[in-house]
Amino acid sequence: MTGAATSEGGGRVRSWWGWGWEDQALSDADCAALGALLPGSPDRPLPVPRVADLDLPAPRIGLPAALAGTDATSPASRASHGRGKAYRDVVRALHGDAGAPPDVVARPADEAGVVALLDWAADADVAVVPFGGGSSVVGGVECDGEGRAGVVSLDLTAMDRVLEVDRTSRAARVQAGVLGPALEDQLRPDGLTLRHFPQSFEFSTLGGWIATRAGGHYATLRTHIDDLVESIRAVTPVGVSESWRLPGSGAGPSPDRLLLGSEGTLGVITEAWVRLQDRPEHRRSATATFADGADALAAVRAIAQSDLHPANCRLLDPAEAAMSGAGPGDRWVLVLGVESAVRPVDDAMALLVELARDHGGTVADAPAPDRRGDGAPAEGWAGAGRDRAAETWRSAFLRMPYQRDALARMGAVVETFETATTWDRLPGLYEAVRAEVGAAIEEVTGAPGLLTCRLTHVYPDGAAPYFTVVAGGRPGAELSMWDQIKAASMEVLTRHRATVTHHHAVGRDHRPGYDRQRPEPFALALRAAKRALDPAAILNPGVLIDP
Amino acid sequence: MTGAATSEGGGRVRSWWGWGWEDQALSDADCAALGALLPGSPDRPLPVPRVADLDLPAPRIGLPAALAGTDATSPASRASHGRGKAYRDVVRALHGDAGAPPDVVARPADEAGVVALLDWAADADVAVVPFGGGSSVVGGVECDGEGRAGVVSLDLTAMDRVLEVDRTSRAARVQAGVLGPALEDQLRPDGLTLRHFPQSFEFSTLGGWIATRAGGHYATLRTHIDDLVESIRAVTPVGVSESWRLPGSGAGPSPDRLLLGSEGTLGVITEAWVRLQDRPEHRRSATATFADGADALAAVRAIAQSDLHPANCRLLDPAEAAMSGAGPGDRWVLVLGVESAVRPVDDAMALLVELARDHGGTVADAPAPDRRGDGAPAEGWAGAGRDRAAETWRSAFLRMPYQRDALARMGAVVETFETATTWDRLPGLYEAVRAEVGAAIEEVTGAPGLLTCRLTHVYPDGAAPYFTVVAGGRPGAELSMWDQIKAASMEVLTRHRATVTHHHAVGRDHRPGYDRQRPEPFALALRAAKRALDPAAILNPGVLIDP
Repeated sequence: MTGAATSEGGGRVRSWWGWGWEDQALSDADCAALGALLPGSPDRPLPVPRVADLDLPAPRIGLPAALAGTDATSPASRASHGRGKAYRDVVRALHGDAGAPPDVVARPADEAGVVALLDWAADADVAVVPFGGGSSVVGGVECDGEGRAGVVSLDLTAMDRVLEVDRTSRAARVQAGVLGPALEDQLRPDGLTLRHFPQSFEFSTLGGWIATRAGGHYATLRTHIDDLVESIRAVTPVGVSESWRLPGSGAGPSPDRLLLGSEGTLGVITEAWVRLQDRPEHRRSATATFADGADALAAVRAIAQSDLHPANCRLLDPAEAAMSGAGPGDRWVLVLGVESAVRPVDDAMALLVELARDHGGTVADAPAPDRRGDGAPAEGWAGAGRDRAAETWRSAFLRMPYQRDALARMGAVVETFETATTWDRLPGLYEAVRAEVGAAIEEVTGAPGLLTCRLTHVYPDGAAPYFTVVAGGRPGAELSMWDQIKAASMEVLTRHRATVTHHHAVGRDHRPGYDRQRPEPFALALRAAKRALDPAAILNPGVLIDP
Repeated sequence: MTGAATSEGGGRVRSWWGWGWEDQALSDADCAALGALLPGSPDRPLPVPRVADLDLPAPRIGLPAALAGTDATSPASRASHGRGKAYRDVVRALHGDAGAPPDVVARPADEAGVVALLDWAADADVAVVPFGGGSSVVGGVECDGEGRAGVVSLDLTAMDRVLEVDRTSRAARVQAGVLGPALEDQLRPDGLTLRHFPQSFEFSTLGGWIATRAGGHYATLRTHIDDLVESIRAVTPVGVSESWRLPGSGAGPSPDRLLLGSEGTLGVITEAWVRLQDRPEHRRSATATFADGADALAAVRAIAQSDLHPANCRLLDPAEAAMSGAGPGDRWVLVLGVESAVRPVDDAMALLVELARDHGGTVADAPAPDRRGDGAPAEGWAGAGRDRAAETWRSAFLRMPYQRDALARMGAVVETFETATTWDRLPGLYEAVRAEVGAAIEEVTGAPGLLTCRLTHVYPDGAAPYFTVVAGGRPGAELSMWDQIKAASMEVLTRHRATVTHHHAVGRDHRPGYDRQRPEPFALALRAAKRALDPAAILNPGVLIDP
């Protein structure tokens, strides 16, 4: 289908410019059909970009022989490591803009290689960008190396093994470069699972999840990878850091919590002990719909403040329901799922349904019968849902990024932003985003476009809304159009003191919002910690803190 | 009963030298009766120490008039603020050793007073020790001010109000100096509760809990105050830090997690938004006993790895059961409690009992009938337990520190240490502590003494054992005897990579173990953060990091 690309995962080919697998990308005809839904779309999609057509700058540096692996400076390797997978990244690639790819890609086989690379880079004044699956949607792996001798992308995916399983404590020591499916494959023989299933599961790594505080499968309780980390091992420029395996501790501020969310700026995560689950034996799901958004939010809040802890509790607003095919678009749709390894969940699901009905929800079908999961791979990794709406949702969920790419090829403006806020502020925030970001879309694109919302994770004290924007764009101007819409969204979030990101991380794109959000003394502390751990400031400069 | 003391809480008088309320201390006769259980005890207890008998050094500094409140330099105030409530503190007071009390006690009425005090102290080179309830058992509030012009104890208890309640999000903005009962009293009209009930509940503050990562009521899920904190406001010497109220976030490393466990070294916590609970309407408890420790641990592990999340899951070894009156001393005793605000807990309790029985446990009585709590104050704050053993335990739990003081007056060596480790290591750790600390007790005191253990908190991947030592001491040598036993305990914990503290904090006493435990790069980062936030190094010098 295209030129150069990275090949992984049993012969399937990863797209260097767009989401996921090349063979999952939409055909030109499908792109055109999607585009036809938007006003002013061109007749045919932009062509799939080819690495061979890129005008890459010559590498300014080379790795020492001892550190150089194969394919360190090939155009395909450099192009695929120079950016993440945000809309912004896709559009630039579609327009032949290669930007500033890393001069070289290092792919050490072990931690000693990471240590050697950091030592060399500090001496050589080379910036190092830790790189897991490369699925960042916030500019987390893009670095122009301004003022440096060069930039190395430090690809960790050769370190992809589960090294040790402690069945008694249900924990495993895992190398940070393992991608989601390979991790679950290695845990399956022990009957265990991490159950951390972000949308990027196939294309992101354990180390990346930890570095970015990724959000996963569970809608409640263990929402972030933070909760699943028992200890972390990382290489900093001043030495290796390894915390003890502890189920809980009160010994000073948590060392792990400094690395969780550090986004490659303080050290390179090489291993972690993670907390595992038994594979669920009991599952149930149900779907409730609501005519009124206030009722739907009240229902979800009641559920989040109960002790029922559903694994899935995804509320789609009418537009989101329509877009994902989970509903006709006139009602809010709440997809609920419960799972347990130890006990039937019929009662819990009955109580969830009761809470939904108490708040005006309609549960059309009787809850799907309790099923004993077989733990087989075919069950899939996103499969909390079991009824029709849940299955529809899951399928749409996994297709979304591919559709995003297709729409981008049709010149559309299509991107997401996500946040979290407390329940008292949530309705006001939702309305403000609808009004103000909606106005920005109309002003910028000349049409209302589509602005949808779902709650991805819920807490006793609040929830995490996830917004999607789809609008027609003017060819060549898409990015500046998106920049204006994104600026409007960040402005609304900041004014409502809603976090600039709930689980996508800060990267370079969210710096303006992040800088207004974090307490200034914490910024001072973080900068000081950075200077102590990375005195030459080689690690991922520009992310979280100024170089 | 004694001389000077601090008066709080409706006219009751707090002991300046020992635990809790003066009127709860054991009588001389009761002390003698307790002491008679130990070999070589004297006939009568050491007299209750009197502030008037202390030879306090003259204050080296005075507060500026604008900052000085009443009672800033009275001997009673200085003596009661100079130390915490560890065994070490009690023994020194009993022997008339006043040590190095603060030169002056400041008790600002508001945050502006805290800011002014820190500004003045930085200019005057005066060390500042934030002081909540003063219940530290790890030397957390003791500071000799070596090399400084003086030491101020910064008593925060005048800032004791709930400022705002958000019923919708179930959260409240609370001043950090509020003691446990006053906090719950202010939340009760809204039908809410923090449900953070450490043993020190009556004598410790919200700010102290946050600064020390205190462990509370819940045996599972929300074990530490960490989990109940939504945002923190703190005064650092370089400015006020305030994090946003967020139910969850992925925007960089968590600012709150740097202050949680900072033990007064990075800033003075003045307010926090905390996550609240509805008052439980349904409760059940049960007690299981086990002849075999391995069975008991297996049962508790199965429970911790289930999704039943009992509020109480306290396993007492036979010696602990005997000491607390919960059992005859020939069996392990597991006290279980479940509670819910939204649903009956009979089924959950039945499953817990089933898990206990599956692993060889005997549940003598049918579980106590489900009771609907009335939420009244009379229900008390430690009352997860409802059956006989649970009530016995609760009562003993609250008496323990008073008995500790009584034993100290009889010259006994009596102290606790606590830790956490993963399940795979727990049996080995338990045996090693029994053997090695047991040997140390015998070597130091000439008799086996008593060494008991309970699990206070349990996790899917491990548990937190809490050990108590009671042994006869030689008058005048008790502290050096305890120091040797404590050194042996820290050595065992470190070798087993079990945390030096699960919820008592590091303070000055745990520094040796802490310094071996925390990753060296984290120590560098923490020191750098300290320099950035507290450039004059005035805040609680010697705690966590070297001055």
